[in-house]
Amino acid sequence: MQLQQSTCPEVEAYLERSRGILVPVGSTEQHGPMGVIGTDAICAEVVARGIGEIAAALVAPTIHVGMSEHHMQFAGSMTLRPSTLIAVVHDYILSLAAHGFERFFFVNAHAGNIPSLRAAFYEAYGELRMTRGAEAPPVRCKIVNWSEPDAVKELRSELFGSADGSHASATEVALTQFADPANIKDAALDPPVAPGEPGRFYDSRDFRTRHADGRIASNPALATPEAGQRLFERAVDELARQYADFLAEA
Amino acid sequence: MQLQQSTCPEVEAYLERSRGILVPVGSTEQHGPMGVIGTDAICAEVVARGIGEIAAALVAPTIHVGMSEHHMQFAGSMTLRPSTLIAVVHDYILSLAAHGFERFFFVNAHAGNIPSLRAAFYEAYGELRMTRGAEAPPVRCKIVNWSEPDAVKELRSELFGSADGSHASATEVALTQFADPANIKDAALDPPVAPGEPGRFYDSRDFRTRHADGRIASNPALATPEAGQRLFERAVDELARQYADFLAEA
Amino acid sequence: MQLQQSTCPEVEAYLERSRGILVPVGSTEQHGPMGVIGTDAICAEVVARGIGEIAAALVAPTIHVGMSEHHMQFAGSMTLRPSTLIAVVHDYILSLAAHGFERFFFVNAHAGNIPSLRAAFYEAYGELRMTRGAEAPPVRCKIVNWSEPDAVKELRSELFGSADGSHASATEVALTQFADPANIKDAALDPPVAPGEPGRFYDSRDFRTRHADGRIASNPALATPEAGQRLFERAVDELARQYADFLAEA
Amino acid sequence: MQLQQSTCPEVEAYLERSRGILVPVGSTEQHGPMGVIGTDAICAEVVARGIGEIAAALVAPTIHVGMSEHHMQFAGSMTLRPSTLIAVVHDYILSLAAHGFERFFFVNAHAGNIPSLRAAFYEAYGELRMTRGAEAPPVRCKIVNWSEPDAVKELRSELFGSADGSHASATEVALTQFADPANIKDAALDPPVAPGEPGRFYDSRDFRTRHADGRIASNPALATPEAGQRLFERAVDELARQYADFLAEA
Amino acid sequence: MQLQQSTCPEVEAYLERSRGILVPVGSTEQHGPMGVIGTDAICAEVVARGIGEIAAALVAPTIHVGMSEHHMQFAGSMTLRPSTLIAVVHDYILSLAAHGFERFFFVNAHAGNIPSLRAAFYEAYGELRMTRGAEAPPVRCKIVNWSEPDAVKELRSELFGSADGSHASATEVALTQFADPANIKDAALDPPVAPGEPGRFYDSRDFRTRHADGRIASNPALATPEAGQRLFERAVDELARQYADFLAEA
Amino acid sequence: MQLQQSTCPEVEAYLERSRGILVPVGSTEQHGPMGVIGTDAICAEVVARGIGEIAAALVAPTIHVGMSEHHMQFAGSMTLRPSTLIAVVHDYILSLAAHGFERFFFVNAHAGNIPSLRAAFYEAYGELRMTRGAEAPPVRCKIVNWSEPDAVKELRSELFGSADGSHASATEVALTQFADPANIKDAALDPPVAPGEPGRFYDSRDFRTRHADGRIASNPALATPEAGQRLFERAVDELARQYADFLAEA
Repeated sequence: MQLQQSTCPEVEAYLERSRGILVPVGSTEQHGPMGVIGTDAICAEVVARGIGEIAAALVAPTIHVGMSEHHMQFAGSMTLRPSTLIAVVHDYILSLAAHGFERFFFVNAHAGNIPSLRAAFYEAYGELRMTRGAEAPPVRCKIVNWSEPDAVKELRSELFGSADGSHASATEVALTQFADPANIKDAALDPPVAPGEPGRFYDSRDFRTRHADGRIASNPALATPEAGQRLFERAVDELARQYADFLAEA
Repeated sequence: MQLQQSTCPEVEAYLERSRGILVPVGSTEQHGPMGVIGTDAICAEVVARGIGEIAAALVAPTIHVGMSEHHMQFAGSMTLRPSTLIAVVHDYILSLAAHGFERFFFVNAHAGNIPSLRAAFYEAYGELRMTRGAEAPPVRCKIVNWSEPDAVKELRSELFGSADGSHASATEVALTQFADPANIKDAALDPPVAPGEPGRFYDSRDFRTRHADGRIASNPALATPEAGQRLFERAVDELARQYADFLAEA
Repeated sequence: MQLQQSTCPEVEAYLERSRGILVPVGSTEQHGPMGVIGTDAICAEVVARGIGEIAAALVAPTIHVGMSEHHMQFAGSMTLRPSTLIAVVHDYILSLAAHGFERFFFVNAHAGNIPSLRAAFYEAYGELRMTRGAEAPPVRCKIVNWSEPDAVKELRSELFGSADGSHASATEVALTQFADPANIKDAALDPPVAPGEPGRFYDSRDFRTRHADGRIASNPALATPEAGQRLFERAVDELARQYADFLAEA
Repeated sequence: MQLQQSTCPEVEAYLERSRGILVPVGSTEQHGPMGVIGTDAICAEVVARGIGEIAAALVAPTIHVGMSEHHMQFAGSMTLRPSTLIAVVHDYILSLAAHGFERFFFVNAHAGNIPSLRAAFYEAYGELRMTRGAEAPPVRCKIVNWSEPDAVKELRSELFGSADGSHASATEVALTQFADPANIKDAALDPPVAPGEPGRFYDSRDFRTRHADGRIASNPALATPEAGQRLFERAVDELARQYADFLAEA
Repeated sequence: MQLQQSTCPEVEAYLERSRGILVPVGSTEQHGPMGVIGTDAICAEVVARGIGEIAAALVAPTIHVGMSEHHMQFAGSMTLRPSTLIAVVHDYILSLAAHGFERFFFVNAHAGNIPSLRAAFYEAYGELRMTRGAEAPPVRCKIVNWSEPDAVKELRSELFGSADGSHASATEVALTQFADPANIKDAALDPPVAPGEPGRFYDSRDFRTRHADGRIASNPALATPEAGQRLFERAVDELARQYADFLAEA
Repeated sequence: MQLQQSTCPEVEAYLERSRGILVPVGSTEQHGPMGVIGTDAICAEVVARGIGEIAAALVAPTIHVGMSEHHMQFAGSMTLRPSTLIAVVHDYILSLAAHGFERFFFVNAHAGNIPSLRAAFYEAYGELRMTRGAEAPPVRCKIVNWSEPDAVKELRSELFGSADGSHASATEVALTQFADPANIKDAALDPPVAPGEPGRFYDSRDFRTRHADGRIASNPALATPEAGQRLFERAVDELARQYADFLAEA
């Protein structure tokens, strides 16, 4: 159930039975020689919609461009400044809270977004406190990273072992291939496992120096749509459970 | 050619032959009883991708949420503050300009976005002047509104006459129906032509007072996917021509 | 009736009978070889004061510097960034709304200001909604461009035909000459009709490339104070009518 | 010599001989029962223009609305937030510095503006350092308060003694009367010397509690246009000297 | 070596041999009935200074107030909005980078600061890229949380077991007691182990509902200055090693 | 009584008897060859704590880094942009006002901070008015500069005469020496009385040109810890009296 494909009266009816909404957050940045630039946005969107199907939950429009300053030495990468991404997420929350949405489940696909998302939650909480005081709605925001639940990590390990990597991973490339065959590129482009130590980089020049073709320790040539489908099903299943728990939380 | 579905090396190759990019800009707001909330985002995206096909041009990720403050009394409507939308568009432009993109063709579907888009262009031009001086890249930004070219207006008139209306128009609803059958809702929901005078509203309460069911002078019950397809073809054809002119401009 | 020349008790008395106010918005930018840099500010101010006379309406202090980034390659041009102009207009509205003003009629003389003005209106509406909710005052903002009403356009055409042009127009130069003889410069400075296509420019370097002496398709040498007076009377007469309609609007 | 009444070529010629400019900064706020709301803007403007005459210096457009939050409980008072005023002054400086202006002499008439002006100077210096480094132009900004030079204070004391006061002072009211007879209101409105201790107030409610009719320790009923003229001549004479010194400073 | 206690020539000499600096980041927020409000600031400062001793490294002034919106229902808690904290950290980095500092080691004591710190790093990297391009200095920023290294965790577990807790922990209270006896309060104030599930809270009202006395699962009554000393030594020893590695990184 | 060293229940008890708080504001900037970089922060902190002792008043955490753009050509100087410092002070005020603090006594040690402090006060007052209207708490903010009361000036003159100077003054260096012997540096570093005219500087390059070793007209070699102690006692005594008056003000 996409918000974009619902009518206003349908949303009114939905709010009678639920205060929750799923928000996919991706990014638009290089994913090595064979991964597509929209990998994170595609992954976040397809997983969020999958959860929405199971949970009969509304899915807000995808935030396609995230905080990817560190990828800016690679053509096609886009970034929002952290302050911009914070403003966007703040406006998402306050817009939807005005209609009665209270539980925001952000389905994220890009680690670089997490600081801005968390900062935005507290900007929103603080502003609601300042402007509404004791009458502020009890808004709750939560981030899940689609490929990080234990159940998904186990499958990633089973499928790709240590060749999965941490950027332009076989896992995320597989999911994009499952999402749309147009995302399948020639695997010969990616030589086996790119070098580089996970999580070690600073600014965009430093990133490119350490990770010359953009990947971090990954071999996305191992990706297949079939693996993508298994990852999708595992993630959606697990995260739908987490979403239900989130809604049920006292 | 979606940027999201291209790899970094593909973008490098593209930049060898073109400096142009299409940016779809929509909104997420009520479109009356039977129009879907994502109508503008869906229209902008499908038209921009259509132009991209004809023009072999890259299409940036869609800006799904626009400036829709005036729709905020209707459930499900989202808005970016103008300042947020300006920051987003500014970051789109400066990110892509860093890689060599110079001609930005914004395919817009929501009049409420236009001020923020134009303001963003001048924020970007000014910042490039201040930080780069004479070495600033010659960035050029242009907005087209997909349903406004004369050729499209003629077809709108032929298809729906004065019942097309100006918000939740039969035209835009038809295009969403062509884009995806999931957007086809029960036409019985919309009584014939909603009252209201085009363009006359101020804040969100004023909008709702004047236009009680969200539509402005429209009868979207007339929309059909077939009409949507004709509108799509007409718009894409005309705008691809305008895009070519834009690239060719001295 | 200028706000600047009224006392606080006089404003209190005014608010007993009217909730409306006129706000002149100009700019400070090159107007070709013989047009003065303050042309737009002078025009907006003199017209707004003229309307104020007829309508017995208060006139707020003129916003002298507007958004003129595109004129910055010409000496003496000033610009507010769009974000600054938005903040200024926002503060005008919220300051005056605190005293009970509700209908803001912006008398504008520079197309480059329109996006920032419109963006500011929605920043203000949105902030009032967020901080005051249902108790927000019913603020309404409207822009008129002094030389754009049909009645004024007809006279422009009659006076100058196609030599009027679109920047540093004979019309606006004539009005400055009527406003103050100090604004009359040697017409020999301006060769007949400057070349250039209206509305076609991007950043400030592009503007100067296309419009080498700053004018766009205009021949301000045709301007006279007498023409300025006729234009003034026509504009003031028409806009006072529009202002009355605006106040009377349900 | 007003910038507003100069052409672009005239400014180019001016810059051949001078790098200095005068910027009047006023405010729009209550000035007691008989002082006009624009008192500070009127004073700053008339004095700056007077200096400009003597010094053959350009005068930038007046900043009419200043930081007057503390006057907001009185009808008609307007205020820019400090952050807005800082942005405006920053943009004035950077716009004019782009053309070669280097010495900015702010002729101020409202103490409440001083913090924002000084903050803006350092925002501008800092930004020039960050974006231009060693190539930044040597911009210098200075504030003078028109009624504060010793020579002016002596005359104020001679004319009004302790009844001059510190807000809605006889001095400033006299200057507005000299500037334009329209600013002369019925002196009977102001009872003799308003009570209140200079400089003692916090927020706008506190101001109104302490200074019920808006004045602080002043008796503007003593003002006359003739006194205004003497004050004008004294101030302009002294400040033109200070401006010359400022330009001559190594 | 505190920057605050060094002279300018001493800093010049330091920069001849090192490009690194330590930045303590704390917060000012409730720490339950017996923990002091400055716990995090005190911990960050004492640990950073300890590292500075071992590593002969400069220590920048402590950021005392962090992002503690979630503690705002408890008297005495202070918070910077995330956007403010981002601006502060950005200014720290860019100020010091202007003198040649390149490696910033943030010694943090409050999890709530991490998003704003990381966001600030990328604001700074992005701004350096935009304003300086290829000539931007190779700034690197890293966060360590003083109580999180494995070596410290082991000692925490040994000292307090599961009663350590996650907010107002025995560990941090012990360190403040070691830092200054004035921080030792009556342990009888804290009943044994406060209830609550770590990491589970949203806005400030939610926090107070879940964690009524402010603590999360902690029993700070177990804290002693002696334990604090052991924790200090362990943390400083380990983090000095990590700092050396950071400086040595290629 | 430091807020940092108080518990939440202690603050609750304090608020039963007082609504006042002291806020030390310093800076981190060069103080000539022998003055330490933290001079202003150290002075503000030690004086505020001294007042706090006498007045039994809470002392908020010190703002260590101020607005010192003009010192940025000297190694080790740090600055917050004015806009950042305004945001910090705004957040201090609004955080503490949320708990019931109403009288904020800023103990300042750096003239460069004053504009940002005053601007912040009016940002805070204005925001409280906008968001809370008539229910806004009656917040009052006041700045004192520790070395400026007449009683302190007399002692300064007695101790150092005209060699005290205006930056890196003997007075402030003496106070840092009293505060901590670690701040005593070799007086031989500072040649007798540095040249330079007080208060005459613009941007950071201009400052360095005029004041080559950073001092302004001072001879800090005259400073002694004993002089520092006398200055401390004089300042604290006088300012405690001013603080009591501030609390007692109607």
